[in-house]
Order: sequence, then structure tokens, then C-alpha cells
Amino acid sequence: MAVASTKRIICCAITGSIHVPSQSPYLPITPDQIAQNAIDAANAGAAIVHIHARNPETGQPSADLELYREIVGKIRAQNQEVVICLTTGGGAGMTVEQRVAVVPEFKPELASMNAGSINWGLFPVADKIKDFKFPWEPAMLNMTKSFIFENTFAAMETMTSIMNENGTKPELEVYDVGHLYSIAYLLQKGIIKPPITMQYVTGILGGIGSTPYDIMNLHTTAERLFGTGKYNWSVIGAGKAEFPATTMALILGGHVRVGMEDNLYLGKGVLAKNNGELVAKMVRIMTELDLQPATPAEARELLALSK
Amino acid sequence: MAVASTKRIICCAITGSIHVPSQSPYLPITPDQIAQNAIDAANAGAAIVHIHARNPETGQPSADLELYREIVGKIRAQNQEVVICLTTGGGAGMTVEQRVAVVPEFKPELASMNAGSINWGLFPVADKIKDFKFPWEPAMLNMTKSFIFENTFAAMETMTSIMNENGTKPELEVYDVGHLYSIAYLLQKGIIKPPITMQYVTGILGGIGSTPYDIMNLHTTAERLFGTGKYNWSVIGAGKAEFPATTMALILGGHVRVGMEDNLYLGKGVLAKNNGELVAKMVRIMTELDLQPATPAEARELLALSK
Amino acid sequence: MAVASTKRIICCAITGSIHVPSQSPYLPITPDQIAQNAIDAANAGAAIVHIHARNPETGQPSADLELYREIVGKIRAQNQEVVICLTTGGGAGMTVEQRVAVVPEFKPELASMNAGSINWGLFPVADKIKDFKFPWEPAMLNMTKSFIFENTFAAMETMTSIMNENGTKPELEVYDVGHLYSIAYLLQKGIIKPPITMQYVTGILGGIGSTPYDIMNLHTTAERLFGTGKYNWSVIGAGKAEFPATTMALILGGHVRVGMEDNLYLGKGVLAKNNGELVAKMVRIMTELDLQPATPAEARELLALSK
Amino acid sequence: MAVASTKRIICCAITGSIHVPSQSPYLPITPDQIAQNAIDAANAGAAIVHIHARNPETGQPSADLELYREIVGKIRAQNQEVVICLTTGGGAGMTVEQRVAVVPEFKPELASMNAGSINWGLFPVADKIKDFKFPWEPAMLNMTKSFIFENTFAAMETMTSIMNENGTKPELEVYDVGHLYSIAYLLQKGIIKPPITMQYVTGILGGIGSTPYDIMNLHTTAERLFGTGKYNWSVIGAGKAEFPATTMALILGGHVRVGMEDNLYLGKGVLAKNNGELVAKMVRIMTELDLQPATPAEARELLALSK
Ligand SMILES: [Zn+2]
Ligand SMILES: [Zn+2]
Ligand SMILES: [Zn+2]
Ligand SMILES: [Zn+2]
Repeated sequence: MAVASTKRIICCAITGSIHVPSQSPYLPITPDQIAQNAIDAANAGAAIVHIHARNPETGQPSADLELYREIVGKIRAQNQEVVICLTTGGGAGMTVEQRVAVVPEFKPELASMNAGSINWGLFPVADKIKDFKFPWEPAMLNMTKSFIFENTFAAMETMTSIMNENGTKPELEVYDVGHLYSIAYLLQKGIIKPPITMQYVTGILGGIGSTPYDIMNLHTTAERLFGTGKYNWSVIGAGKAEFPATTMALILGGHVRVGMEDNLYLGKGVLAKNNGELVAKMVRIMTELDLQPATPAEARELLALSK
Repeated sequence: MAVASTKRIICCAITGSIHVPSQSPYLPITPDQIAQNAIDAANAGAAIVHIHARNPETGQPSADLELYREIVGKIRAQNQEVVICLTTGGGAGMTVEQRVAVVPEFKPELASMNAGSINWGLFPVADKIKDFKFPWEPAMLNMTKSFIFENTFAAMETMTSIMNENGTKPELEVYDVGHLYSIAYLLQKGIIKPPITMQYVTGILGGIGSTPYDIMNLHTTAERLFGTGKYNWSVIGAGKAEFPATTMALILGGHVRVGMEDNLYLGKGVLAKNNGELVAKMVRIMTELDLQPATPAEARELLALSK
Repeated sequence: MAVASTKRIICCAITGSIHVPSQSPYLPITPDQIAQNAIDAANAGAAIVHIHARNPETGQPSADLELYREIVGKIRAQNQEVVICLTTGGGAGMTVEQRVAVVPEFKPELASMNAGSINWGLFPVADKIKDFKFPWEPAMLNMTKSFIFENTFAAMETMTSIMNENGTKPELEVYDVGHLYSIAYLLQKGIIKPPITMQYVTGILGGIGSTPYDIMNLHTTAERLFGTGKYNWSVIGAGKAEFPATTMALILGGHVRVGMEDNLYLGKGVLAKNNGELVAKMVRIMTELDLQPATPAEARELLALSK
Repeated sequence: MAVASTKRIICCAITGSIHVPSQSPYLPITPDQIAQNAIDAANAGAAIVHIHARNPETGQPSADLELYREIVGKIRAQNQEVVICLTTGGGAGMTVEQRVAVVPEFKPELASMNAGSINWGLFPVADKIKDFKFPWEPAMLNMTKSFIFENTFAAMETMTSIMNENGTKPELEVYDVGHLYSIAYLLQKGIIKPPITMQYVTGILGGIGSTPYDIMNLHTTAERLFGTGKYNWSVIGAGKAEFPATTMALILGGHVRVGMEDNLYLGKGVLAKNNGELVAKMVRIMTELDLQPATPAEARELLALSK
């Protein structure tokens, strides 16, 4: 039975690799914190939790597979239903091989797959933070002045191939309009398989902005390239754009992602204490618009996951 | 006196570094050919000629300053007026330092400055060419599968600084919507100076497409970020999009670029024998739309060049 | 002191002339009901209440000035602050003279002024109503098959002139993109005075639709014609589009109108019992987006009303 | 065999009812002039000629069926191929019955059918004309200040029904975005039959403007409502917008209309001496864009005419 069009998938990105611990004491860092936040997000209405690992002492983004194993284990100990999406974006400085290693290891239903290369300019954030808890934080932020988030066509082909072998659906991360064209190329060549699932990551310096105009530009381009109703799409808005951008997605018929990877605040000046709070807010907005959060089972059906 | 709004700048990009000699026997390769094509383009109505050098034997893109010196000298021997814009995009495989070396050496009025990093996917072209004249050609095309055209924020800051020191105006090459946001950032930080001059390079795999929708998306974003009438802009359409895309720019009030760097054909199946033919065709379209090609002097005034 | 950009005006249109009593037992009809709904709306957060009168026995739209006098009096007896906006749209079948008579009589701060003529097709609604309470209802709905909502350039000039003489600000009702051009013409000729206030009425058959694409088309056209930040604008979405369309307006920086003139439902299948409920829902959406309802005083400052 | 996508229909509107003889000595007025202009337009590349009649003495728009008979006869005496499209828009002041009378009388393959009611503001033109040849000219222009071009839903249903009975395809004239929604309604109700043919009439005061943004707004709305490739569409640009607006249509994949009904000038300050000149200019633009004018036979196939 088809899932109702009023059901929308909420993905919650628990901690990511962009924010630094100095920005919020609530940023989950340890496997326990990350897993608990994921469980709270699922309880609040998220059908998908998107997972990065961090070094439990320093909060630095980590590619350590044992940390991922611990996080996934702790989530599954309490929640067998929520879709777990593992990152292959990693953190600044990791190689493509490091980034994709989670796929053969954990064979997740869903994993992020970045659809192009861009400058990834986190450095302006460094000026806004007065006291850094850890020396790696300003170093990482400042390093991005000369950083490119590398996802070449060859890398995309490799990653997709590994995902196909492991029954993992790529969640295609789109940072600019050109990435939609690159996906259209990969789709036409059979390198990625329909139905595709895309996520518009807006507001990263180097990529497209997060205004409603940007979301409309991405959306109308995708409609033209892929055909209305023939693909899945979701929106991320960085920082304070999180709720306007995702609400815009809802109005346009799309799915949404919230969470501390993208935004640390519940409202102006109010830090979210838990990812579940951000999901709960998203659910409230949905409710006002006569929409309902999709369950994990509904998300699996909508995205054609192979669990 | 202000230049009339019906005057539009034609830039002619003589040879570039994307096309390979096997694609057209008319692609200018030697300094003589490149200079003669530039002079012909100027005579046909181009106010600006955009110059890359190539190895005169093999046609391979070259960063050799002596070749640039020879080309510029040969153009200036016959034409003292046309604006000469030197590339800093270079060719796949050159370092940023190699690419920018032309600026301190020749202090051009205008030089290209790429406003972001993207995948630069020329490899699909390789399948369309049956016989390659030179082995570097398929090697270069296929290499782009794992190539990123690197223009980090640090590189942009370095390049702009060198241009500022040498009285060179950066012609900002925009390959996707996010690059407009990056330019807005650089402008706000004072790293680039107003009035800015941008060129929308459309149709490169990895960047935005060259449909009228793409040009509209770029244009409306720029209008929003920079303010109507407060900046200069031009459009490039790769391949057969050259004339539809540039005509669209004319209708929207913009300037245009044509030339064998972007497109080798005068019409379906008809190779241009000379860059002047492409410029002449552009002038004919302008004339039908009640527009006139700007002279080099008018282009200097419009772009606020410091000659 | 300038009003903060996070303040947005909620206008509540209490009863209008489109809906018929058979559609909802809660549609306010008598002066008491209309006034009480207006007071409730103001208490819930509306800065403006938009008033039509109806025959208290039959609910039929009425141009009777005594009814308007009674409604305004009852509102003002309890609330001296809320901005009262009187309709000059009237109901199907009234002449322009009848429609504008409220202006010299009551000299309201704000009155609606329709910015063009369109087909006004309410007739498809008749098929959805099983039992009509009053015979005028199906007659009025069916009559609209051959009805034009007449607002010629001459009529607009007359209406505006009467408003100017009475210190009444026209709230310009825009039913399609062309109406924006008509307003630009009237503004350029000095027939209407800046700063203008426009309301995009979307979803009437004969006018523009109420999708996010339509709102974006209206908004980008207005930005181009009038200049960002140089005019006030608000959105109405007919029927179930009320909350998506107004939320879209909030995201784009605009003001909003809700109320039983436009929409009778709080959510799928749930009739609003009172206009205050619709305003309260709008306030909840605003709050989630970090916005606040403007007070009547702030609305007067934003719209430059002459009270 | 399918018509190639590079074939585009040129319709030439010979004289219309908007322009007055004082604006150009070349405006065709007599049946001989109108017929000869139609033949010249066809010879220059127009597949369709759109016909209004005028009083041969005064040039005033006329509903006289004998004049239409004479014009059609004179065209067919020399050209049996060109598609003849008769107006049902008539001139300001004619009734719907007068306007549609040509359909049962001549059973044309194609006739215009206006898809909504709008203010039709020709009056600003009166200020630009110094000497009027005929007193009806300023009277007609000034009258439009209080004129509505009436095309109610009832009238559209009547007209369409008469066209269906006579094997006449309606060419749906769209003056604003809302008219597209009205057509979608009529199509859904089976009142008009697919495949539909629409013409976007831009630049009439009261309707949508003729900028590229307006054409894009109409086009993207139509694509959304009717589906890419599932309908025919063409663009008209009033006055000096004729060639920019039609060229924009070509770039977007549409057909075009030119002719003295819409525009009297070949270029700035240069009156067209003959409709054939305007068609020839359109053909030149097409040629530069690698497009070809459709023949009348190809136009019949594209529009599914029943000749
Ligand atoms: Zn992530
Ligand atoms: Zn170049
Ligand atoms: Zn009203
Ligand atoms: Zn006509």
C-alpha cells in the first residue's frame, strides 16, 4: 500500500563533523551520547538517524570503525526500527577510502554519498568562537580556507559500487545545482540506480545558499531533470536556516533533515539540549501543516531500502 | 558619458584548454594562429579576446610565459585597442602558481579568476572522438574523471591579491550558484573590489547546466546578491548551447562570450573556420535584437578597467 | 524606532463574501458574531481585522452601511487598538459605488482596493455542497460562471481618489501577476502613493493559483517592480492552501492573512469554530519560525497608516 | 512522421484591432492590403496568418462577415496552404456573439479563444500620438480606461462548444498566469480537448508584462500544469518586446507570433513596411539559433488541426 503523501520523513543528523564542542556543551561526542541522542530523536519522530563518530575525549571527528560499532550497537540495543544512515562524508582531512570503510563493515541500509566537489569554507566560524576547548578546533576550522571537499567522478563511481555490493542505498548529498546535473549523468550511465534519494545541503560557504530562492532553484531543477514524483528529496538548512529551509521543503512536498550536525539552536539564543528537541519542533511544524512524520517502515517503503 | 545600455561586450575566447586538436583542424594552436584569430575576432566585433597558450607542436595547453609573450606581441603589433584577458585557469594539471604567473609578468587589464572548486568532467567527450592526433589528448580527457578544478578560498585570496598589485581586474568565472555566494563573501570581506565582473560558465559536467533555466537561476541569484545594475555579467554556453545561452544573456541584459574555447561549431555540423566567424554570428544576433557590440573603449568604461 | 524584521502582521478576514452559511455553522453572520470574532482574532494576535457585512438573517453579503456601523461600533466598544480594514470588494453583484461607500462614511485607516478585473469562478464549489440553507447561496455561486469581478482602471482611479480624500490607505488586492504591473503603472502616474501595501490573493478560479510556485512568481515580480524592502506585502491562500501559502510568505519575509473569508478549516476535516482559532494557529507557526505577530501599533508604523 | 523539434511555427498577426492607422501608414486596412500582407507573410515563412478585419475606409476594427469573406477569398486565391486563424477577440466594444460569428460562418481550422477577462488598457498610447487621422482612434483608446476584455467562463464554454461543432481548434490566448489555471480547469472538465494550443500574449496593460521573467513564469507554470511536451505554446510580445520575447520563446522550445497586430517596428525607429518583413526577421533569428520555420503542413501536424 502506498504511503500517504502527507507523510514526510524526518532524518536527524546527530552530531556530524562540522560543529566543534566549543559551540555547544550539548553536542554529543561519546558513543553513549550519540546513541542516546539518536534514540531520543527516533522517539520524537525521526525515521532516520544519520551518524558520524567523534573521538570521545576530544570530540574530534573520527573514522574509527570501533566507535561506529559501539554507536550502532547501543542504538540497536534500544531501537530495532529506526533507519541508521552512516556518513561517508567523514570529516575534513579523511581520505575517500577512510570515509567509505563503514559501508562494507556495517552494510547500512542507507549511507550518505556526496555528489560533487566544493570548497568547504568553515573558517568564518572561527572568528565567532571566543574560547576554544580543544586546539584541534581552530586548526580544523582555519584549515578549511584551503580545503576542498573531494568527491570526484571516480570517487563517486567507487563509492556507489561499494554501496551496491553491500545493499546500501546512497543518500545523494547535493551542495549546488551542478551536483544535480552530475547525478543525472551518473543515473543515465547506470552508475546509480533509481529510485534516487537526494538531500539538498544548503548554506555551506562554497556551496549554494539556504534562502527559499536557493531551495526553489534546486527543486525546480530536480523536477526538470528527474520528473515530478519520480525521486525522493529532502532539505538541510545550515544554522538558523534549519527551520525556514525545511519548512519550505515541506510546503514543496519534500522530506527534511534536522539535528545538531546542521544546527545547534532551538530558537534565537536557545541551544538545543538534545537532538530530540529539534525533531519535536519539526513535528510541531508538520502538524500545523497537516503533515505527519513517516515511521521507519514508511521511510523504508518511500526510499525503497532493501532491509 | 555613460555607455548606452544597448551596447554589449563580446568577449572571444580563442582556443582555451578544453578542446583538443582532434576535434577541429581549425582550433588555433601556434602563437601565429592564436594571434591571427584574436585579431580576426576583434575585427568582427569582439571588445575582449581571452587568451590561453598551447604547445605549437602538439596543441597541448601550456603555461609557458614565452608563448604568452609571443601571442600578446603579435596581437598588439596589429591591434592596440582590443582588451586582452589572460587566463589564470590554465589547463588540467597546472598548479595555482603556474596559472597565475601571467599576471605579474604581463600585468593584463583583465584576467580570469575562478570563483570555486568543482569536478571538471571532460571525460565523456573522449568517447565521441574516433581518431586522436596526439596521445596527450585521450590521456588528458580521461584524467578528468578524477580531476578537481582547484580554486580554494586561500587560492582565490592569493590570486586576487596578485591581481590587485598588478592593476589587473579579475573576471570572476562562476560555474555554479554557490560561486556567487563565495563572491559575495569575498566582496563583503573586501578581498575583491567593486565593481565586479562575472562570467557564468555553463555546461561543464560538474558545474551548472547551460539551459535557459540555469541561466535564469544564476541571474536571479546575482541580482539578489549584488543588486540590479551594480555589477557586470556575461554568459558562456558550452558546445551547442553557445548561441542559445548567450542570446538568453542578451535578452536579460548581459554581456556574452563566444569562441573556440567554448564551441567549435557555427551551426549543426558546420565547424567554424575562424573565431571571427563566431563573433560575426553573435553580432548578427545582436543586430536583430537592436543591440550593438561595445567597442574596446566602451568595454573598458563598462568594466572599469585601469588601462 | 524601526519595527523589527521578525515582526509580521496578521490580518484576520472575519467572514468575507465568498463562503456561504451552508459551508460552516461557525461562519459569522450577525453584527454580534462578526464583531465578537474580530475581537477574538485581535486577542489571538491579529493586528488587523478585515470586515465585510452580511444580512443577519440570511448571511447574504450586504452593502448596508448600518450593518457596517453596528459591526465597527461593537468592535471598538471592546477594542480601541486593532486596525479595522473595510472591504471595498463587496460581494458579487454590487456596483463599484456601493462597494466604495464605506470609505467616505467611516474613513477607515485601511480599505481593500482590487487591482484588476478577473473572472471570479466560485461555481465549482456549488457541486460540493449537498444541502443549501438559503436559496441565494446556489444562485450566487452559479451566477459566477458569467461573473467578472470588475475593477477597471477608471474604477481604481475613482476608488483611490476617494481613499486619498478620506485618509484611507488602500490595501491593494492582487489576484494575478498582471495586477502587479497595473499597480506599477498607477504608482508611476502618482494615482496611488508610496509606500504601497499589497495582498496576494491566491487560489481564486480566474486568478493565479495558490501553490508555492505562484507565490514565488508574484513575489519575485514584485521585488523586481518595486524594489526589495520598499513595499509591504501579504499572502492569502484560499481554502486548504491557507497555512502552506501564508507560511511560505513568512519564509519569504512577508505578512499574512488568515480567517474565515479565506478558509473555514483548522485542519483536515476540522472546522474552525472561531476566527481566533485560525489566528492562534498562525501565531504558533510564527513562533516555530522565530517570528512574532506585530501589534496594531507596529502594523500602523509598518504600513504608514495615518491614524 | 514526427516533425523535428527544430521546426518552429511562425504565426503572423496581420493587423489586429489594437493599433490605429495613425501609428503607421503601413498598417493594412483594406481587404486587399490585409490579404496581400498575409500572402507576403506566408511567403516569408509564416505557417499561420491570424486575421482581423477593419473598415476599409476608416481602419476601424470590424465584425463584418463580408469583409472576412473577402479577405479569406483573396488569400486563398493565391495561397491554398497557409493556415488561416480567425480572431474571436474582435475589437473593443464587440459582443461575444459578434466575436464568435466567424466560426460557424467560415469554419476555420484555427481561431483565437481568450482564456480569461482582464482590464485592457490601451489608453496610455493615446498620449504618444500627436495627430490622429480619424476621430474613432482617440475615442477607442481612451474608452479602454473603463474597458474590460470580457471572456467569462460561460463565454469560454459557449465559444469552445461552437468551435468543437465546426472543427475549429481554439488557439487559447493567455494574458496572465491565472488564465493557465482556467485552461487547466476547462481541460479537466472536458470543455476543451487535448492537445491544447496556447499563446502567451504579453505586455498588455492589465495583463502580464513582456519581460523574460514573465515569459519564464508563464512557461514554468504551464510545464507544471500540462506536462513538458504535452501541449503547444507560442509567445507574443507587445511593441518593442516582440523580438526579445519571441526569441526567448524559441530558446525555451516554443513557437512564436509576430506581425503588425503586435508590433509596427522592424527596429528602433524603423517602421515595418510589410508584415513579411517582420516574418523575415524572425526567420533570420531562427536560422542563427539552428531552427527552421515549420511549413503549414508541419504546423497542422504539430497542432493537430483537422483540415
Ligand atoms: Zn553527515
Ligand atoms: Zn579560458
Ligand atoms: Zn474581503
Ligand atoms: Zn488578434
